[in-house]
Amino acid sequence: MVAQVIDGKAFAAKVRAQVADQVAKLKEENGITPGLAVVLVGEDPASQVYVRSKGKMTVEVGMNSYEHKLDVDTSEADLLALIDKLNNDPAVHGILVQLPLPKHLDEDLVINSIDPAKDVDGFHISNVGLLGTGQKSMVPCTPLGCLMMLREHHGSLSGMDAVVIGRSNIVGKPMAQLLLGDSCTVTIAHSRTKDLPDVVRRADIVVAAVGRPEMVPGEWIKEGATVIDVGINRIDAPEKGTNEDGSVKTRLVGDVHYASASTRAGAITPVPGGVGPMTIACLLANTLTACSRANDLPEPEGLTA
Amino acid sequence: MVAQVIDGKAFAAKVRAQVADQVAKLKEENGITPGLAVVLVGEDPASQVYVRSKGKMTVEVGMNSYEHKLDVDTSEADLLALIDKLNNDPAVHGILVQLPLPKHLDEDLVINSIDPAKDVDGFHISNVGLLGTGQKSMVPCTPLGCLMMLREHHGSLSGMDAVVIGRSNIVGKPMAQLLLGDSCTVTIAHSRTKDLPDVVRRADIVVAAVGRPEMVPGEWIKEGATVIDVGINRIDAPEKGTNEDGSVKTRLVGDVHYASASTRAGAITPVPGGVGPMTIACLLANTLTACSRANDLPEPEGLTA
Repeated sequence: MVAQVIDGKAFAAKVRAQVADQVAKLKEENGITPGLAVVLVGEDPASQVYVRSKGKMTVEVGMNSYEHKLDVDTSEADLLALIDKLNNDPAVHGILVQLPLPKHLDEDLVINSIDPAKDVDGFHISNVGLLGTGQKSMVPCTPLGCLMMLREHHGSLSGMDAVVIGRSNIVGKPMAQLLLGDSCTVTIAHSRTKDLPDVVRRADIVVAAVGRPEMVPGEWIKEGATVIDVGINRIDAPEKGTNEDGSVKTRLVGDVHYASASTRAGAITPVPGGVGPMTIACLLANTLTACSRANDLPEPEGLTA
Repeated sequence: MVAQVIDGKAFAAKVRAQVADQVAKLKEENGITPGLAVVLVGEDPASQVYVRSKGKMTVEVGMNSYEHKLDVDTSEADLLALIDKLNNDPAVHGILVQLPLPKHLDEDLVINSIDPAKDVDGFHISNVGLLGTGQKSMVPCTPLGCLMMLREHHGSLSGMDAVVIGRSNIVGKPMAQLLLGDSCTVTIAHSRTKDLPDVVRRADIVVAAVGRPEMVPGEWIKEGATVIDVGINRIDAPEKGTNEDGSVKTRLVGDVHYASASTRAGAITPVPGGVGPMTIACLLANTLTACSRANDLPEPEGLTA
């Protein structure tokens, strides 16, 4: 069996197009333009790249993008004051504070100061609690993206055996809640799991979110299973030669050994080009959802959990 | 193999004795008496019995018990005003609103109006979110009781395969979070699970929380597994004869078929006398925990998740 490749890049583009359509409709029919505020503290290069991409795509789907770049030494009080302002700004429907924050800032405190209704990252404890009790919430972007891909591929997930490898607050745990919400039988595995190969082997759906390069070999995958690989790990790739400075070139791999897994899986997301592109698409979807709710309009179809 | 019976009645008494010891210490060393406020709206007979038991045991461990009995027609505004008063009363460390509420009252709204730090039932969405992200929280009493019994029996649960049958917000889901917090590999099964016997057969720990009499037969239980039966179901017991009015006598059974399961399990909780008595004991433990936190004192040892 050769697995169908789940093309995250193409699917993310489709999701962004859906968002753009609905944004256009919102503007035309209701005179409302969704707005996303992104707050970046400091000059971490990776964070700067993310924030730039987010801003660019926000504008591309027709939303307003508000970027707030603060000095690395910004005080907690100043950051909280900015968030308070954004919480009270009716033009801002989504607020995202780019993580990680500099060490002198309390991330939990900062995240929980965002109005839960504008918390488009879905990290506020109220949103975790709402998701955990099956209520309407803002859902973290990466697991929401994984859920959308699974629904797109399978239609109903009801009754499927799903295994989530990894129990992080950002991916593993909300992913398990989402799969449970879609009536999968859900197993959460992690570093203390006794017989991980056996646990993975019984799954119709495997979501790997550990951050260890290629730790899931193809032989663990049940014939025909769907594999969602959340890991994005950079490893040395001596076969690609060296850079000008003599260092070995690198490449990105997932948590799943793609070559072997794709001979057994029914469908699989590649790395790169799988889950990754879905994250920003879901951020835009969440912003649209937040805007619709703030204006008592129906939820955007197909873009929520 | 004949299963060891996990005596919930005896263990609950031990937990209450621990609470009483620590309450005595709190009074002596800090001059503080923990207080639990219970709010009952209407005259549901079962709720009246629960509230009476809770009040009695609260006093027995040396705490103050405040009972607020409101008319069945109490308005939402009046109920919220009472909760606000209790939230601001420094003598009240725990607040419990007895469920179910009469239909004209919004349960979610009422529960979420309780100060999360005083929410000894652990139902406030902030507490769900804190538990769901591995932070300090108030933990729902029944799953906390199950966890305490499992820890008492096994010591460490790390790496054990646990299956929770049932995905309610009150038992199944928080139970799964607690087992995950203790590093079990956790599977959540439910009515849509395809092959429940197979799922249960691979578990070292089975927590049944469905509310269907004797739905788990002994043959599903892995030899030596620990079985925690949360179900309390009343069924006809014609073998006991009839009541004076001619109706058939009844008896209580769990979600597990006890007679057959106890020939295979390593340990099992009976019904009645298993999980049931632990719930009020954990309510008292939570009230003590809330009181300790409110006064910046160390967490009561062995009584929290």
